Amino acid sequence: MGMNENLSKPLDRLSAELAGDMDQVNALIRERMASRHAPRIPEVTAHLVEAGGKRLRPLLVLAAARLCGYSGANHVLLAAAVEFIHTATLLHDDVVDESRQRRGRPTANLLWDNKTSVLVGDYLFARSFQLMADTDSMRVMRILANASATIAEGEVLQLTAAQDISTSEETYIQIVRGKTAALFSAATEAGSVIAGADEAVQRALFDYGDALGIAFQIVDDLLDYGGMSSTIGKNIGDDFRERKLTLPVIKAIAAAGPDERAFWERTIGHGRQDEGDLETALSLLKRHDALKAARADAIDWAARAKAALGPAPDHPLRAILSDLADYVVSRIS
Amino acid sequence: MGMNENLSKPLDRLSAELAGDMDQVNALIRERMASRHAPRIPEVTAHLVEAGGKRLRPLLVLAAARLCGYSGANHVLLAAAVEFIHTATLLHDDVVDESRQRRGRPTANLLWDNKTSVLVGDYLFARSFQLMADTDSMRVMRILANASATIAEGEVLQLTAAQDISTSEETYIQIVRGKTAALFSAATEAGSVIAGADEAVQRALFDYGDALGIAFQIVDDLLDYGGMSSTIGKNIGDDFRERKLTLPVIKAIAAAGPDERAFWERTIGHGRQDEGDLETALSLLKRHDALKAARADAIDWAARAKAALGPAPDHPLRAILSDLADYVVSRIS
Repeated sequence: MGMNENLSKPLDRLSAELAGDMDQVNALIRERMASRHAPRIPEVTAHLVEAGGKRLRPLLVLAAARLCGYSGANHVLLAAAVEFIHTATLLHDDVVDESRQRRGRPTANLLWDNKTSVLVGDYLFARSFQLMADTDSMRVMRILANASATIAEGEVLQLTAAQDISTSEETYIQIVRGKTAALFSAATEAGSVIAGADEAVQRALFDYGDALGIAFQIVDDLLDYGGMSSTIGKNIGDDFRERKLTLPVIKAIAAAGPDERAFWERTIGHGRQDEGDLETALSLLKRHDALKAARADAIDWAARAKAALGPAPDHPLRAILSDLADYVVSRIS
Repeated sequence: MGMNENLSKPLDRLSAELAGDMDQVNALIRERMASRHAPRIPEVTAHLVEAGGKRLRPLLVLAAARLCGYSGANHVLLAAAVEFIHTATLLHDDVVDESRQRRGRPTANLLWDNKTSVLVGDYLFARSFQLMADTDSMRVMRILANASATIAEGEVLQLTAAQDISTSEETYIQIVRGKTAALFSAATEAGSVIAGADEAVQRALFDYGDALGIAFQIVDDLLDYGGMSSTIGKNIGDDFRERKLTLPVIKAIAAAGPDERAFWERTIGHGRQDEGDLETALSLLKRHDALKAARADAIDWAARAKAALGPAPDHPLRAILSDLADYVVSRIS
């Protein structure tokens, strides 16, 4: 991801602030990822746990709960449940995208097979609902069931919107809400609900998670085209090869003349891609300032995330969450 | 399935008895299977709804609730939730088994693709938890979350036990509990819970569903080898070709001499199958009375299902549920 050392601080500060809670979450994840009867399940889940990851979503649950003054133990259950939903969707996404690598390691569908990824994903999804049931909060259950439906809906929408060069920015945001923002906003909202926060604060934390998630995904999609520089430490062009209509491409298509439109139709619409096409795509994105415009949108969503925190209680975590929104877009500065 | 007309009566009686409730369940299923944002979802789910099916699992929910004197409306939500879980697992199973047909129609993974089946399955699973949240019963939520975990666990266990000719009858029952009985027993138990039945009755209905589900699956596995006759209206040998260790084969392997063991090792263990091997397998099953022995087990489980109903309230539905257990095994008489 090539983080700017200076700006990685908000996530580090969040992790440090919540280290005690997070240790409990990690222990619970390890405990509940096991299976009494099917030995393959712990093999696969251990592979996923070892891969690490930033644990951003459980941190958002914990932060929202603590920010709202929570002092119980249910936020740990909830954080683990959210991470299980996230992990289940990663397993299924890798099957859907036929991915071979994630976080620099071979994917489960490559190491085992698609069947295993589908079924272990289902297992983790069921385990997440068991964890939620343990919180004894029906509101939380409803929030995460709704988020799960939105996630699946967004993924199906992405499947049908892929390859369709008439996809609008509105549809793109809908897809992004599903694939990323729904779980961010469910994490922050549920954290506040479990803490018994009042309606306005619940709404504030939902809006924060929603805007943060959208900013996060726009940045991810920008990085897939190299971000703002051409020397980012990530393979570029995966979305182009998979013919995904992401924000930079949607903006470039909107500004395209007939020849350029024919290029997008051929490469993304019909999937006929030759050597040099990615370079052409990058030059078109540059010509129409599509990366710059997408970056401006990401920065705008990050600003909305920060503004949403207005009604949230005065607490050290509030400043960290605010800085986290800046940090998310700093990856493309 | 080639039902014996005379013995199909218990299921017909159950449907007739619960017709009013079932109309509501079907309406709710149609309503909740839709999607506001992703048009492909209703296409796929309509394909599944039109395929019909016996709706046995929602009928079990309704029957258990009514048997226990329930007069509210939550049993309809619960029955739809159970059918959604069932449909989601069928979608994922067909991906895992690479199936091309179900109920005489092409599968969703064939008509669309594996990606669509995985994601629409996830969507239905999320929708089922939304329905459960609407019942406002955390006990019911927990029962179905547990069942969902057991189902996924059973499927993974089946994946790893397939091709392993040392699979025991105990492991087989574990797999069957996961893939079939867990949702039957969750349906009947949750129906009784929602009706506020006392502990002994809840337990009775759990045990009934568990034993009924095991009998049901043993019968299904028998029918895959032609049942007790050789002229059943179903393609036989699918499980043999997929190298599944089902009860008849496990029994035949237990009785096998060295040559026969080598045959099973080659065909199921290593998957090297030639023309005539299915016929050989059938003759070995016959030689060791493996089909007869499996049938005796199915009848035994049906008897246990009937006996389990002991503590259940005196009600016309009780006799129908008891007859249903006989009906399930009548398919192989």
